[in-house]
Amino acid sequence: MSEENENIQFELTDELIKQVEDLIAIQDDKELQRLLNEFHYADIAEILDEVNLEEAMYVIKLLDSETTSEVLMELDEDNREKVLKNLSNKEIADEIQELDTDDAADIIAELPEERQAEVISQIADEEHKAEITELLAYDEDTAGGLMAKELVKVYETWTVAGCLRRIRAQAKDVRRVHSIYVVNKQNKLVGRLSLKDLIVAKSEQKIADIYITSVDYVKVDEDAVEVARVMQKYDLEAIPVVDENMVLLGRITIDDIVDVIRDEADKDYQLAAGISRDVEADDSIWKLTLARLPWLLIGMFGGLGAASIIEYFNESMGAFIVLLSFVPLIQATAGNVGVQSSAIIVQGLANDSIDGNILKQLLKEFLLGLVNGFAIALIGLLITHFVFGTPYIVSITIAIALITVIVMAALIGTFIPIFLNKRGIDPAVATGPFITTSNDVFGILTYFLIAKIILGF
Amino acid sequence: MSEENENIQFELTDELIKQVEDLIAIQDDKELQRLLNEFHYADIAEILDEVNLEEAMYVIKLLDSETTSEVLMELDEDNREKVLKNLSNKEIADEIQELDTDDAADIIAELPEERQAEVISQIADEEHKAEITELLAYDEDTAGGLMAKELVKVYETWTVAGCLRRIRAQAKDVRRVHSIYVVNKQNKLVGRLSLKDLIVAKSEQKIADIYITSVDYVKVDEDAVEVARVMQKYDLEAIPVVDENMVLLGRITIDDIVDVIRDEADKDYQLAAGISRDVEADDSIWKLTLARLPWLLIGMFGGLGAASIIEYFNESMGAFIVLLSFVPLIQATAGNVGVQSSAIIVQGLANDSIDGNILKQLLKEFLLGLVNGFAIALIGLLITHFVFGTPYIVSITIAIALITVIVMAALIGTFIPIFLNKRGIDPAVATGPFITTSNDVFGILTYFLIAKIILGF
Repeated sequence: MSEENENIQFELTDELIKQVEDLIAIQDDKELQRLLNEFHYADIAEILDEVNLEEAMYVIKLLDSETTSEVLMELDEDNREKVLKNLSNKEIADEIQELDTDDAADIIAELPEERQAEVISQIADEEHKAEITELLAYDEDTAGGLMAKELVKVYETWTVAGCLRRIRAQAKDVRRVHSIYVVNKQNKLVGRLSLKDLIVAKSEQKIADIYITSVDYVKVDEDAVEVARVMQKYDLEAIPVVDENMVLLGRITIDDIVDVIRDEADKDYQLAAGISRDVEADDSIWKLTLARLPWLLIGMFGGLGAASIIEYFNESMGAFIVLLSFVPLIQATAGNVGVQSSAIIVQGLANDSIDGNILKQLLKEFLLGLVNGFAIALIGLLITHFVFGTPYIVSITIAIALITVIVMAALIGTFIPIFLNKRGIDPAVATGPFITTSNDVFGILTYFLIAKIILGF
Repeated sequence: MSEENENIQFELTDELIKQVEDLIAIQDDKELQRLLNEFHYADIAEILDEVNLEEAMYVIKLLDSETTSEVLMELDEDNREKVLKNLSNKEIADEIQELDTDDAADIIAELPEERQAEVISQIADEEHKAEITELLAYDEDTAGGLMAKELVKVYETWTVAGCLRRIRAQAKDVRRVHSIYVVNKQNKLVGRLSLKDLIVAKSEQKIADIYITSVDYVKVDEDAVEVARVMQKYDLEAIPVVDENMVLLGRITIDDIVDVIRDEADKDYQLAAGISRDVEADDSIWKLTLARLPWLLIGMFGGLGAASIIEYFNESMGAFIVLLSFVPLIQATAGNVGVQSSAIIVQGLANDSIDGNILKQLLKEFLLGLVNGFAIALIGLLITHFVFGTPYIVSITIAIALITVIVMAALIGTFIPIFLNKRGIDPAVATGPFITTSNDVFGILTYFLIAKIILGF
């Protein structure tokens, strides 16, 4: 029996893809079905992401409708778009019939607007149709946009035995029963119950006597990131969603939240790296350019700003032209410190581990900047003087500039994200090239001002 | 009844902390207990993270043992260390008694080594003691380090009715029943069953007739990040862990995986921002300095390297001294492009969305670099010539240098992470200051070499 078990190690090899392509070429449907039936739908999706569109369509038409719908959900978004373009409204409606309401609504939302209504009208099951239409009305970044209509609910007036009977019917539609939600006559959420509680209870007991009145919930318009935060904090695997009158509307499960967490982390990471849109390495060059060019332009204008500063001071610098050699040192240091400070604040804000008290954080970064600054400045002083042979007074100028620039860059890197956060703007936009560029320019200006004062040119 | 329900909105206000501190000061235990009982243990932990150690200890000794153990798990790691230092071995052992085996093992692993054995020896429940000792033997970054011993397992020879009876007993220890694992006489995993399946089945049926033979599992020495990847890919809420003989050892639940995902994302983010250790904004200045100074030093040596290059070319540059003004522009552009390229590759590798085919990715980045490079170079050419009044030949030199530097930085940013990944080194170390610094130096060198060729100095 153990051979039938699935170890999680699926490997997408070139041989496997070749094998699938060959079977498609000779139209050996039986063998293809036998081969693909061995795999999980997430694995089939990985295979289809690698073959061309005609081949993918061939496989999709071959698989049974339940598998196809799950495979569709797992496809890369760009590929799914292409596949959906090649399916008729009726075919999409049939696939959607097999999916949970939340996944179904997500797929429909990806369709061009003019197709959405047509696909919905072709869904045979009236209840499913109504539920999907309801879900499409919610903003995708809210609890309503994450929730599914599938859940198990019982009325507080039922008995345990009656409950179990009815749950058997309801549970068929619900892939995983996390909690059973208890509602009153007005469909308002009043409590919860686990399947375990139900099994352990005596069959003649009333639900009203055994349910747990303390139940976490979220309002339907709650922000998705906030839902993710609380589900993590309270270790919840599912959370019910209610409207403003506590009427039970749906539930959100942890697997959807995992995606929200991943997406948030990816977005912050990309912003820190100067990529302004949600792109992946396999996106088109055009899409990648649109995501990357804006930040490069910002960096360029920063560089041109620095050029003006240098030209300005250059005229009066005279014998101290050697200062120009150390511009890259000042610039690199300012940029690095700024990114370090801003990243740690952005992460702290995202994880709720700092309270956003600006003064406290600024004081800390000030001290941190002094410690790091003295260390860097001392090493800088020794190397510029003894290795480069820079005159003492110039080396001291560079060292003082380094400390100042490090402290200032740390303060700017701390202040901007906290400030943006207080204003309700995602602080992650302030990381990466934004902070690097402003610190570059600011750092170089500070450097020359200090030099002008000390060296008196 | 709806007032008794808990909306997820807990807010940690200064007033609340003050209230708790005041109640501790006047030792009003009753009121303190009443107040804290209103909160989830994760909220109590947030409060304790804000008060001082003596106050936290006061509350911990006041709460009942079950709440304390959960609160302990949720405390900030540094604070937990301090609290544990103030508890006796017996007290820790009592707390641990209340926790699931995976959490218990995590707490013990945080203790200084000499205390670990003493605490374990004080655990009253022999089975719990043996299980925790077993878990402590696994590497924390493997499936064994993540799993808990709590699970519901049934033998294939049992009947549904017998099963339900026994599950009632087993389930008491298991907080959430995701799947029921079916084992044979040798305790080898042969299949699974959901509680739902069990409820829907007839009570006289044999488990052997109704269980599902296809079950995903992981080996006990599997890497934690890999476990997270497959649980996400296959949308699993729990996965059983087996040894090399398929003997069922434990199970991993999705909430532990959420932490793994978060930690991985945080680590990559910090590496991209030039922070070399796992630190948080509220860590000590000393710890933060140790995490940040190494990258600043690397940046500094890069800056000094750039200084040598400039000094070298400066001697022969003569009339083209204006070139020096545009060093920051070259440097910023090279740094930004390098970070963009490396970040997108690192993320692609982490998400398995690129296959690590070096040549294909390099070709793409080459084209992308050309597109971005021409755009930036053209704007640069126009601005330097018409706004800065730089001679045409110098503006053209800058433009050509920009294209070259952008293409090269993109190629370096792509090549290094893929290369490291192939060598089994975490590609994330190649992002941030590492890539910025090498691109800075390389970019400036390229700039002057191109200038030397075109301008002939």
